[in-house]
Amino acid sequence: MMRINLTECAEALLEQDSILILAHAHPDGDTLGGSFALCAALLKLGKKARVVCADEIPNKYWDIFEALDMPEFEEKYIVAVDVATTNLLGEFGEKYGDKIDLCIDHHATNTGYAKKTFVDSTAAAVCETMLGVITALGVEADRAIADYLFTGLATDTGCFRYASVTENTFKVAAELVKLGADNGKINRLMFETKTKPYAAIERLALDSMEFFCEDRVCIITITQDMYKKTGATEVDTEAIPPLTRQIEGVEIGITLREKPNGECKCSIRTFESVDASVLAAAFGGGGHKQASACRFECSVEGAKQLIVAKCEELLK
Amino acid sequence: MMRINLTECAEALLEQDSILILAHAHPDGDTLGGSFALCAALLKLGKKARVVCADEIPNKYWDIFEALDMPEFEEKYIVAVDVATTNLLGEFGEKYGDKIDLCIDHHATNTGYAKKTFVDSTAAAVCETMLGVITALGVEADRAIADYLFTGLATDTGCFRYASVTENTFKVAAELVKLGADNGKINRLMFETKTKPYAAIERLALDSMEFFCEDRVCIITITQDMYKKTGATEVDTEAIPPLTRQIEGVEIGITLREKPNGECKCSIRTFESVDASVLAAAFGGGGHKQASACRFECSVEGAKQLIVAKCEELLK
Repeated sequence: MMRINLTECAEALLEQDSILILAHAHPDGDTLGGSFALCAALLKLGKKARVVCADEIPNKYWDIFEALDMPEFEEKYIVAVDVATTNLLGEFGEKYGDKIDLCIDHHATNTGYAKKTFVDSTAAAVCETMLGVITALGVEADRAIADYLFTGLATDTGCFRYASVTENTFKVAAELVKLGADNGKINRLMFETKTKPYAAIERLALDSMEFFCEDRVCIITITQDMYKKTGATEVDTEAIPPLTRQIEGVEIGITLREKPNGECKCSIRTFESVDASVLAAAFGGGGHKQASACRFECSVEGAKQLIVAKCEELLK
Repeated sequence: MMRINLTECAEALLEQDSILILAHAHPDGDTLGGSFALCAALLKLGKKARVVCADEIPNKYWDIFEALDMPEFEEKYIVAVDVATTNLLGEFGEKYGDKIDLCIDHHATNTGYAKKTFVDSTAAAVCETMLGVITALGVEADRAIADYLFTGLATDTGCFRYASVTENTFKVAAELVKLGADNGKINRLMFETKTKPYAAIERLALDSMEFFCEDRVCIITITQDMYKKTGATEVDTEAIPPLTRQIEGVEIGITLREKPNGECKCSIRTFESVDASVLAAAFGGGGHKQASACRFECSVEGAKQLIVAKCEELLK
């Protein structure tokens, strides 16, 4: 494994011709935007390139993304985009996990599984970095590329809300709008549009809110019954965890999602005062300082007791 | 009334010494951010300057805004910031309405009530323009000014979500972050923090959602009873109207808020397909193409019937 810089990253790509690009499983706007933007740039250079992802790409992205004419070919070079560890490749982890030639990422926690790794951990989104990579490839980004990249930049920053947003993030956003990104439409589709099933389960989730530790901990519980009642799926509930820490005074926001087998998944969101990854690690999970996750092999009620006890300890 | 440009605006300010700055009533982040930033810049130039507003400034702004040492003095020059018509001055309308020397605004609908008017209608927020005014005054914006301006820029654009955001909006945001604006904190306080009363009334509001015209119209109803149950006030519910058009397929979002006398206020939000100001005008109201308002001298139930009938007509 070798850490490389932006120029070396572009040079490595320019040497190759048949490039397979891997987005991470449960794909979000950043891994997709970065992957498709890179693919479009490589195609413009006359190379063979294709994006694959272990999971289906949610429909909402196709309302924004221009479909690329990606030929079938035998891959000779494998690039992972926005993939911090090979665990995130889903079912492609086994097939490609130890064969990845290049990784382009913005996670400081990148495990360095690729032969060459370019990580810009100052970037709020991999798409913030990808514009530079594309420019270094000698490709002028067109409107389609600008749309891909803006989608990733906006979604990975909560539409520029998060503290990870820097001067450069806004500069890149300005550049993408100049290049033709349809920022109004993208933000409307990504942030202002709720499906009816999502809106219904969001209401039930908000109704389930409970407060602990002098209101410094907020827990939302999503049960299998709620999925049945609303027609929402687990993927629909990805937008729920941030809601747990929106109430004034809350320092730890917990989302417990019941699995079909009665066990549960736990998402943790915090502000600066609490390290979410420490809380997740106590239950065998992990993640970032303000966004982590773990699993419980027990019911949501059991999990609630365990995590509240741990929160009490941490907040002391 | 005379329309002037940015340079003339700065020149007009530089000639004056004792400047009263008017923010609009029911103040939002943009009128406050723009007013305080201008005031701070004028104070830096050694001038006497002071900001006034007919209504109290919501507490949340004081968690961001550095308090200015604004002396008492006899005003010789009156500047309105982000005030499209003198109706928006609240109780100060009578006192100052016909005495305003300069207006700095970004609303294309500005009525030109001031002796000199500088309107930059390409700007998504008056704060986007104000950085240029301050620079033209020869003042280097410091961290406090950057915080004022970023607050206005973020709040008037729904944190950069709206279609009004341009390349220049992002450029100004980048510049403000470079100058020290604490964008992460500002966005958290403005967009990610709900008081418990607000969170409670938001839940009731979402529970009240009704759909009409083949789900193309969504109506939220807020009753006096809901204020009583939750402890929320009408000011708390300013964030509700955008929620009405977030459901997939909705083209017109209506928020009906019951007044203490049983009559009601109506906020209208639309997307490009429907002109909200036309709908509001049918009931004696007005506003922008995608955000308008009107009043009904009847109950919420009566208003609902009237407005649904009009929506049916418009959507035909």
